[in-house]
Amino acid sequence: MEKKDIFVKGFKAASIAAGLKKNKAADMTLLYSEREATAAAVFTTNKVKAAPVQISMEHILRGKARAIIANAGNANACTGSEGNKNAGLTAELTAGELGIKTEEVLMASTGVIGAQMDMDKVAKAIPGLVKGLSYDNIPLAAEAIMTTDSFPKISLFEGKAGNIAYRILGIAKGAGMIMPNMATMLSFIMTDINIDRGQLKKALSDSVERTFNRITVDGDTSTNDTVFIMANGMAGNNTLSVDDYRGFQKGLQDVMNDLATMIVKDGEGATKLVFINLKGAASEQDAITAAKNVANSYLVKTAFYGQDANWGRIMAALGRSDIIMEEKNVSIWIDDIKIVSGGLAVGPDKEKIAAEKMKNRSFSVIIDLNMGGDEYNVTTCDLTHEYVSINANYRT
Amino acid sequence: MEKKDIFVKGFKAASIAAGLKKNKAADMTLLYSEREATAAAVFTTNKVKAAPVQISMEHILRGKARAIIANAGNANACTGSEGNKNAGLTAELTAGELGIKTEEVLMASTGVIGAQMDMDKVAKAIPGLVKGLSYDNIPLAAEAIMTTDSFPKISLFEGKAGNIAYRILGIAKGAGMIMPNMATMLSFIMTDINIDRGQLKKALSDSVERTFNRITVDGDTSTNDTVFIMANGMAGNNTLSVDDYRGFQKGLQDVMNDLATMIVKDGEGATKLVFINLKGAASEQDAITAAKNVANSYLVKTAFYGQDANWGRIMAALGRSDIIMEEKNVSIWIDDIKIVSGGLAVGPDKEKIAAEKMKNRSFSVIIDLNMGGDEYNVTTCDLTHEYVSINANYRT
Repeated sequence: MEKKDIFVKGFKAASIAAGLKKNKAADMTLLYSEREATAAAVFTTNKVKAAPVQISMEHILRGKARAIIANAGNANACTGSEGNKNAGLTAELTAGELGIKTEEVLMASTGVIGAQMDMDKVAKAIPGLVKGLSYDNIPLAAEAIMTTDSFPKISLFEGKAGNIAYRILGIAKGAGMIMPNMATMLSFIMTDINIDRGQLKKALSDSVERTFNRITVDGDTSTNDTVFIMANGMAGNNTLSVDDYRGFQKGLQDVMNDLATMIVKDGEGATKLVFINLKGAASEQDAITAAKNVANSYLVKTAFYGQDANWGRIMAALGRSDIIMEEKNVSIWIDDIKIVSGGLAVGPDKEKIAAEKMKNRSFSVIIDLNMGGDEYNVTTCDLTHEYVSINANYRT
Repeated sequence: MEKKDIFVKGFKAASIAAGLKKNKAADMTLLYSEREATAAAVFTTNKVKAAPVQISMEHILRGKARAIIANAGNANACTGSEGNKNAGLTAELTAGELGIKTEEVLMASTGVIGAQMDMDKVAKAIPGLVKGLSYDNIPLAAEAIMTTDSFPKISLFEGKAGNIAYRILGIAKGAGMIMPNMATMLSFIMTDINIDRGQLKKALSDSVERTFNRITVDGDTSTNDTVFIMANGMAGNNTLSVDDYRGFQKGLQDVMNDLATMIVKDGEGATKLVFINLKGAASEQDAITAAKNVANSYLVKTAFYGQDANWGRIMAALGRSDIIMEEKNVSIWIDDIKIVSGGLAVGPDKEKIAAEKMKNRSFSVIIDLNMGGDEYNVTTCDLTHEYVSINANYRT
């Protein structure tokens, strides 16, 4: 995707180095819709919610928004009433500079937890952000929201509603603390489709469930995870038909799937992208529990890193899941190589071939419990020396 | 403790290099009681149970045992009916050589999962083991059951029942895959006290709950975890009084606590031993859930390694626990340094002092939820580069 293609009708972006990141890189981002947009959001389920999450949860109740203000470098989480005051003030200053209502501003933060925001820096940065707004700046915005990310994450979908072309453009930030059921880190989706609020909410929640909620890097979840979507209607399409809606939902899911996969690929220190397919479960809940237990196991993840088809660790992770299973029913494949059949090793030759497959940057682990018809997919990564380095030294 | 003190009346031990470990170190162990002993056990709760676990679960039903045969190098797990046949045969051969009943033999294995046991090697080793039995060999037995352990684990308690002295001697193996509610890796306890089966079972399960079930290295649990206790009565004491029983239970718990602490200290690649004290919970279940979530968080454990008083990660781990909590009620200490009060940072000075405390080999993290009166303790370790190295390369 070339930079010149990264735009959506009516959406402007800006980013600036406010001085919140230590390295003087851009750390504040503003996304702005020329017209009032229909808006929806998914937030972290963590009981400890950052101040910007709390403010945005109120603002989103209106179902409408004009702007998203985001920063990296400071999460404004565990900052108490002062943190909430600061988040409120940030929304207010942004609205004032843009000439819109405070409630039309959504907000998100990422970075260190427990430090108060340097409001002098934030207040100084906002006018510059508004001045810098441009249709071409979305790629820079994707960079400005990065923290431990090693690359910016952008995905575009082009569809038609009736005969009218529309776009869905998503950016995301995240490379750790990613766990199913926690939305993601930050993802902002802009679309010019004309869609009503109910449809937008449903499309968003269905897509999040099938994408961001199915990736996992380390089982930890953040105080700040947020997904926003704004639809400004500037494509000019009519009310969506059933097929149009399906096309939009599918397009949104594709964009989110792209972003989710990039997040796992960029999992802190990850060298492997691993698709876990758990099938044959006795219930959907069993499928989810078993898939996540395998995907989050320290020992399974280090075996991925070691390129070792150590299926015993997968069996042990299944066995400690609270699911209905019979050891003798389990089959396991690495890509198309069956290494476990009827709960037993197929043989060292097969494990050797499977280990070869594991030398690739990405591979699949398929587990069939043979207990029923339910299935679940999770995307995960390996646990590496670099993960430990990044997270042992994050604040220092 | 000097080697000459490591004995219990009537118990002999032997170990031998059967060739199951790649490095030609001793890998089979036999413990033998001259007299029939009252016996009890706690096994893994993993649904995938190794063959020796399955056999021992049957044999222990009699409440009596004479011998424990154990090996490292091969877990005999996920080995199907052939694995069960091999485990049965091992018990039979051991019993035959000792001149006791097969049902009097308990067994445990640890090592690689999914490979069939080399029965030629096992069969050849057993006569040598029986010939080698001696009162002085328990220290060697503790070494022979090691896998990734960096030191053998032995603990002794000397008590009196009435005026009669008795001993409790425990050995253990384990340095990873340790998680609360999963007993431990392997631990074998020998005592010469005269005690009835009901008392022995109760003392064992109470002690396990307060010791092995409260340690955690990586949240993974094994297919082979086993704790055995044999009491041969050779101390010659009378029926235990209530006080005698209390003394015994306390002694047993001390031995197990010693062993459990050694296991965490030897956590694969661990550089820190961390005592998590979670108090002020609204319920016991909340206390357990919150303590374990903190103790098992990848991000909290890497912060321990980085000697970083990064309490935001602790708050996030609490917040994603399914517990009753109010962010503004939480206080956190590192040893005696309060770093969080009312959900907020006490200040960077305190964090600096706390980080100094974290340079020690061991320290405490005290978390007060201020929601009620329930409390739970877990002992954990840090997540290090060495952990990744050990587990990425375990089989190769």
